[in-house]
Amino acid sequence: MTSFSERLLAASEATQSLVCVGLDVNPALMPASVLRQAQDERITGRTQDERAVVEFNRAIVDATGDLVCAYKPNIAFYEALGIPGLRALDATVSHIRDAAPDAVIIIDAKRGDIGNTVEAYATAMFEVWGFDAVTVNPWGGMDTIEPWLERGNGGIIVWCRGSNPGAGDLQDLAVDGGEQVYMRLARSLANLSAGGNLGLVVGATAPEQLAAVRRVCPDAPILIPGVGAQGGDLEASVQNGVDRHGRMAIINSGRGIIYASSGTDYAEAARVAASGLRDGINDTLNSMGLGWRPTEK
Amino acid sequence: MTSFSERLLAASEATQSLVCVGLDVNPALMPASVLRQAQDERITGRTQDERAVVEFNRAIVDATGDLVCAYKPNIAFYEALGIPGLRALDATVSHIRDAAPDAVIIIDAKRGDIGNTVEAYATAMFEVWGFDAVTVNPWGGMDTIEPWLERGNGGIIVWCRGSNPGAGDLQDLAVDGGEQVYMRLARSLANLSAGGNLGLVVGATAPEQLAAVRRVCPDAPILIPGVGAQGGDLEASVQNGVDRHGRMAIINSGRGIIYASSGTDYAEAARVAASGLRDGINDTLNSMGLGWRPTEK
Repeated sequence: MTSFSERLLAASEATQSLVCVGLDVNPALMPASVLRQAQDERITGRTQDERAVVEFNRAIVDATGDLVCAYKPNIAFYEALGIPGLRALDATVSHIRDAAPDAVIIIDAKRGDIGNTVEAYATAMFEVWGFDAVTVNPWGGMDTIEPWLERGNGGIIVWCRGSNPGAGDLQDLAVDGGEQVYMRLARSLANLSAGGNLGLVVGATAPEQLAAVRRVCPDAPILIPGVGAQGGDLEASVQNGVDRHGRMAIINSGRGIIYASSGTDYAEAARVAASGLRDGINDTLNSMGLGWRPTEK
Repeated sequence: MTSFSERLLAASEATQSLVCVGLDVNPALMPASVLRQAQDERITGRTQDERAVVEFNRAIVDATGDLVCAYKPNIAFYEALGIPGLRALDATVSHIRDAAPDAVIIIDAKRGDIGNTVEAYATAMFEVWGFDAVTVNPWGGMDTIEPWLERGNGGIIVWCRGSNPGAGDLQDLAVDGGEQVYMRLARSLANLSAGGNLGLVVGATAPEQLAAVRRVCPDAPILIPGVGAQGGDLEASVQNGVDRHGRMAIINSGRGIIYASSGTDYAEAARVAASGLRDGINDTLNSMGLGWRPTEK
């Protein structure tokens, strides 16, 4: 089995895309047409939610599968619907494997705990669910990160510098020599990333931090949330986030794609939004002389 | 509805106990008798695990319900068994509510994410599951903590200083003025704890850090893992962890109680272990002049 980095690269090349779709479903934000379609007098509220989420995700995946390298469901939104929500996530994963077989599936779960608990989470994420990668919270220290990497080729993407306004509260604190906590972390992770199964999360709203992390981890995948709704700059994200070949950045957009329209045309609108994001990224790659090679599709 | 701190205090007074039982179930470590009992040719592996976990937890709760103030399942161990594991957790919660109605239920999930995602996690933990409190990972900054507190009286217990060997990698880094990151965090949380719905996790293996956190958060609940298998000192944990009344510490033991025996007497052995831990804690409280009042049971 290939490493996460290799699977990601293959997915990007197959679709000529660094776009990741954040499948952060919320029935309250889903088009009324999907909710109506899922209504059925014989089933209860949460099972109706399950049906609506499966239908919505299926339509989004069908509309975007050839345009994106990754899907990233945030598990919180599925947990909020109880066990029916997790069943909907399971059905979504199955559908992605069928309809977009190149795509990697990153579960945004930001899990983190001490040794034997991490082993249980790794079993859950890689063996039970079969995700390609999971986002990991490093707060517990290096001995909470290493056990994740002892489980075959499941990838972890460590939350290094967030996209939210408060991300700097702990992550940007300056330690003794003046280095910031997130940079201390990135340097600690650099060696571990050599196996191809460790990446980092750095928010698009923090372009300087993104460039700094890329310098110390030149080859690792970097997941970049925060373009779109959160206001991160796309061009800077590409320029600062890609590796020297113009690859290994995963540019995530959630609401900007999946809720591009609240009408019955939501899937078409998602396709237009994903395509536009891919084009914008690829324009920047071209301007850097790092566009997709003609031998690639 | 009362605050988490009030519910915790009532639970401690009803049982004269600061003991929390960590329900970190792992079928590989469960007594053979429980696994045999759950075997049934008509059902598959994970459903057998579900049945075994429910039976095991039921016996542990029945044997310890009058001796402890809290139960703390770590959700990772249930997620590792897939959806059947989560059904087993649900059945366990129901049984605790029936058999140990005084106890608070803390889900050890160490969740943390940005604003709208935290809202989804809060819905999951407080509304879907109905837990009394959830452990929270603060790495994302203060704006990832505050949304948890806007949801009625669900408690959060913030992972401040861990019990694991690597906990200090980020948490103990010294920032500008010489203060360590975990203390910066504890001071930031002090005001938020005033509402009675915010506590902190500090490992028993870090007694000095425990005392320091207690000084800046004099009234907040402190969850103290790491006595027993991880080697934390019990007497120091009590002395450094309780508030000025000798309350508001939650001393967790997992493996030391639930796996006290691997024989058919596992529930009785769990009772003996829980009782011994309660007695050890209460001896220390008595020596501090902070024992349970005679008017209490």
